[in-house]
Amino acid sequence: MASAPVAIQDLYPDDFAHCFGCGKHNARGHQLKSFVDGDDVVARFTPRSEHTSLPGFVYGGLVASLIDCHAMATAAAAAERAAGRGIGDGPAPRFVTAALNVSFLKPTPMGGELVLRARVTERSERKAIVEVTLSANDVVTARGNVVAVPMPASMSAAGPLV
Amino acid sequence: MASAPVAIQDLYPDDFAHCFGCGKHNARGHQLKSFVDGDDVVARFTPRSEHTSLPGFVYGGLVASLIDCHAMATAAAAAERAAGRGIGDGPAPRFVTAALNVSFLKPTPMGGELVLRARVTERSERKAIVEVTLSANDVVTARGNVVAVPMPASMSAAGPLV
Repeated sequence: MASAPVAIQDLYPDDFAHCFGCGKHNARGHQLKSFVDGDDVVARFTPRSEHTSLPGFVYGGLVASLIDCHAMATAAAAAERAAGRGIGDGPAPRFVTAALNVSFLKPTPMGGELVLRARVTERSERKAIVEVTLSANDVVTARGNVVAVPMPASMSAAGPLV
Repeated sequence: MASAPVAIQDLYPDDFAHCFGCGKHNARGHQLKSFVDGDDVVARFTPRSEHTSLPGFVYGGLVASLIDCHAMATAAAAAERAAGRGIGDGPAPRFVTAALNVSFLKPTPMGGELVLRARVTERSERKAIVEVTLSANDVVTARGNVVAVPMPASMSAAGPLV
């Protein structure tokens, strides 16, 4: 019997699950949940009314934020797969964003659910390139190309080192 | 006697001032304010405690969002200057983002004010390229390269056309 799917972000270690975009421990955040779907990773998110840019359209900063967090989860899933593990077999590795490139192809309409779909197109131990689409009403309105790198040791300390 | 500086976003027409990142009419938004400073445009923003990624560091989605809104204001100021007007002489033209490219150079620490500084490096009637830095404690932690285009007519209707 198939078990219930597990969101990749819900497998991030508790100490690193406070992200405003996708951390299960950030009560005020978006709590984006990304799920493995065959070779892709998929997430769904419905913007709140305040997440607007121009009236009727979704705020581009939210679009970029969702693409970012979804890409990190996709990189984590690919790393688990490369290590011979499945999502849910253990904690998910934590990636951070080195570069976030978003093309806004057309305005994203408010009023419905957004669907994010992503895939790793290139991967090494040092980084992963993740391609992401964001769709509204089955129309792709934004594309992301995101460079994910494993969380550096300097970010796992109690505070910033900068 | 010098008059008080006016935020570029506060000169956006009322019908287009609802952006979550910088709209004066979005009570729940960030209300970023960008000011002309010589050849640059500068903004300052202090993240709230929930705007975290990993503990101690600022959420990359917020960094990207601030760079995005600040770049649109910078494009608006450059358009006004190209038309022979100053900021405050009339409503500011409304730009939207065609492409948002952010390089995260190092983690951005929580706990202080972020400073955004931007300049248009290339401009035509059809688009502007805006280069942005985001600094914390005088250290540049992220760079943005943003393509701004004048708001298309399809976005000035009451709702989405997609």
